[in-house]
Amino acid sequence: MLVGLVAFLPALAFAVTPSEPIQPIKVAKPANPKLVSLGQKLYFDPRLSKSGFISCNSCHNLSMGGTDNLRTSIGHNWTKGPINSPTVLNSSLNVAQFWDGRAADLKEQAGGPIANPGEMAFTHKLAVDMLKSIPGYVTEFKNTFNSDKITIEEVTLAIAAFEETLVTPNSRFDKWLRGDKKAINKQELAGYHLFKNSGCVACHNGPAVGGNSFQKMGVVEPYKDDSAAQGRSAVTGKDSDRFNFKVPTLRNVELTYPYFHDGGAATLTEAVDIMGRLQLGKKFSQEENASIVAFLKTLTGEQPSFKLPQLPPSSDKTPRPEPFAK
Amino acid sequence: MLVGLVAFLPALAFAVTPSEPIQPIKVAKPANPKLVSLGQKLYFDPRLSKSGFISCNSCHNLSMGGTDNLRTSIGHNWTKGPINSPTVLNSSLNVAQFWDGRAADLKEQAGGPIANPGEMAFTHKLAVDMLKSIPGYVTEFKNTFNSDKITIEEVTLAIAAFEETLVTPNSRFDKWLRGDKKAINKQELAGYHLFKNSGCVACHNGPAVGGNSFQKMGVVEPYKDDSAAQGRSAVTGKDSDRFNFKVPTLRNVELTYPYFHDGGAATLTEAVDIMGRLQLGKKFSQEENASIVAFLKTLTGEQPSFKLPQLPPSSDKTPRPEPFAK
Repeated sequence: MLVGLVAFLPALAFAVTPSEPIQPIKVAKPANPKLVSLGQKLYFDPRLSKSGFISCNSCHNLSMGGTDNLRTSIGHNWTKGPINSPTVLNSSLNVAQFWDGRAADLKEQAGGPIANPGEMAFTHKLAVDMLKSIPGYVTEFKNTFNSDKITIEEVTLAIAAFEETLVTPNSRFDKWLRGDKKAINKQELAGYHLFKNSGCVACHNGPAVGGNSFQKMGVVEPYKDDSAAQGRSAVTGKDSDRFNFKVPTLRNVELTYPYFHDGGAATLTEAVDIMGRLQLGKKFSQEENASIVAFLKTLTGEQPSFKLPQLPPSSDKTPRPEPFAK
Repeated sequence: MLVGLVAFLPALAFAVTPSEPIQPIKVAKPANPKLVSLGQKLYFDPRLSKSGFISCNSCHNLSMGGTDNLRTSIGHNWTKGPINSPTVLNSSLNVAQFWDGRAADLKEQAGGPIANPGEMAFTHKLAVDMLKSIPGYVTEFKNTFNSDKITIEEVTLAIAAFEETLVTPNSRFDKWLRGDKKAINKQELAGYHLFKNSGCVACHNGPAVGGNSFQKMGVVEPYKDDSAAQGRSAVTGKDSDRFNFKVPTLRNVELTYPYFHDGGAATLTEAVDIMGRLQLGKKFSQEENASIVAFLKTLTGEQPSFKLPQLPPSSDKTPRPEPFAK
């Protein structure tokens, strides 16, 4: 009966309770579909790497929560990456990009891995030369930018435009936030209350449930790992920024295992336990931990849905990839 | 006027001329959509590899003509593969699978790379154990096979069922075969006539324009390469089968560069020139070569079109990939 009644209430009744520290993810409304479509192709194109084997999607796999689900990534020549690949999902909501925030935005980020010798191991010049040699890309860049030249700025702008569409709205938790009180169950709600009342929400808040600040990893107790990554200090040069990392989003966290900048926590249970102890000085009981994990799984939203792109073929003039060159 | 008239002719007028040695590709009609959908997920799932990084789609990339566009592929730990990855497109039409035909069909083929130490470097047992630990897969296997167990036979059957859908109908050449005489231009038609009259069609015939026989590479002149692959003799043990390889399909050959079992020909121009000299004792003029290449590009069909699959997440019990384990 209540359900029937609720249906007649004005839309305002479903507005987000203003006091909640987490807000729903908004559906993406791309301003320039041509740019997004070009960016999608580039995102999936391994020819942006020296080997012709590694694309953006290799480490930020959109079949797997926008991650590679590895502790640290595999780069050119099977190089072991220094850090865990963060999810590309909802990354447009981040205050900055990379764990240490060294890129201001997605456009700046997109150029990084292409030229990183341990990742795609290419150069921006070679990437642009490659694209210029492919008639299908030449036409598409022209149609998108109304210009005959192709620049790395256009390449990264297009990739960023595609990535801005990779938001995950309508998670069960967002439905609950919007007023559908049946969208999450008792245990999940209890987990959310614990998440709020224990202090997790101090860092994990906003629409992305994180991503909007840098915080020290190991507040109460130091975090012990064998990772060389020291976080934000690599960017600011300040000793006080050592072990400060961008707080990761918890959206789709069910899909983005393993956790932390070093991928050191294999499961959500482990991650919640470690975060409680190191950041909050709190030992969650098994039941509390399970409730928080149950809540976190309600943050899985609608995954990006699109057809696998078809890439324009190389021409006779396209330089061939060199996967085994020294 | 002729066009108007033609429209009134009975459908029979558009039937394939029976004398042509190439037949159109038929649209796939999957008998079991559940099986195909499961196979699609498995095809894209890198957890079927030891590293958690390499899926079927890594080397048979459906954004790139079902190949990796590399001379030879990259396997586990950046292993250089011994042979060029053939396209998965229309592979259901092949007489057998692999260049040497050592697998009778797609189902038998699918198990190969998973357990090959230089490719996905896993074992069938580990692959099945991994799948059994993932609730999403357990449910989907149950819904597909009405059984609680998961076997490698089911895994390879599902992958093969997906691969059987990867046909590429309605190429311009197929439209021409079906009676649309404007579907290809004069140069392309001249190329087809050369292709037929020079003898290319002796091996490259049927719906796949190849794929239906084993032939010696280097009939008139020996093929010189530094590849260790000796072809069919590795399967039959017969010395007379040395350098006999399965004739590759020429469907979508515009997309499946580089060419030959060793990826030794970077361009179609080069491949046509070498084939003419080595197989037919014929030196095509530049104009003839260009016509044949133009014809070959009319064999590009409609590429498989489907949404990028979402993979069910691992559970806490799922063994984690070991990309850097020795």
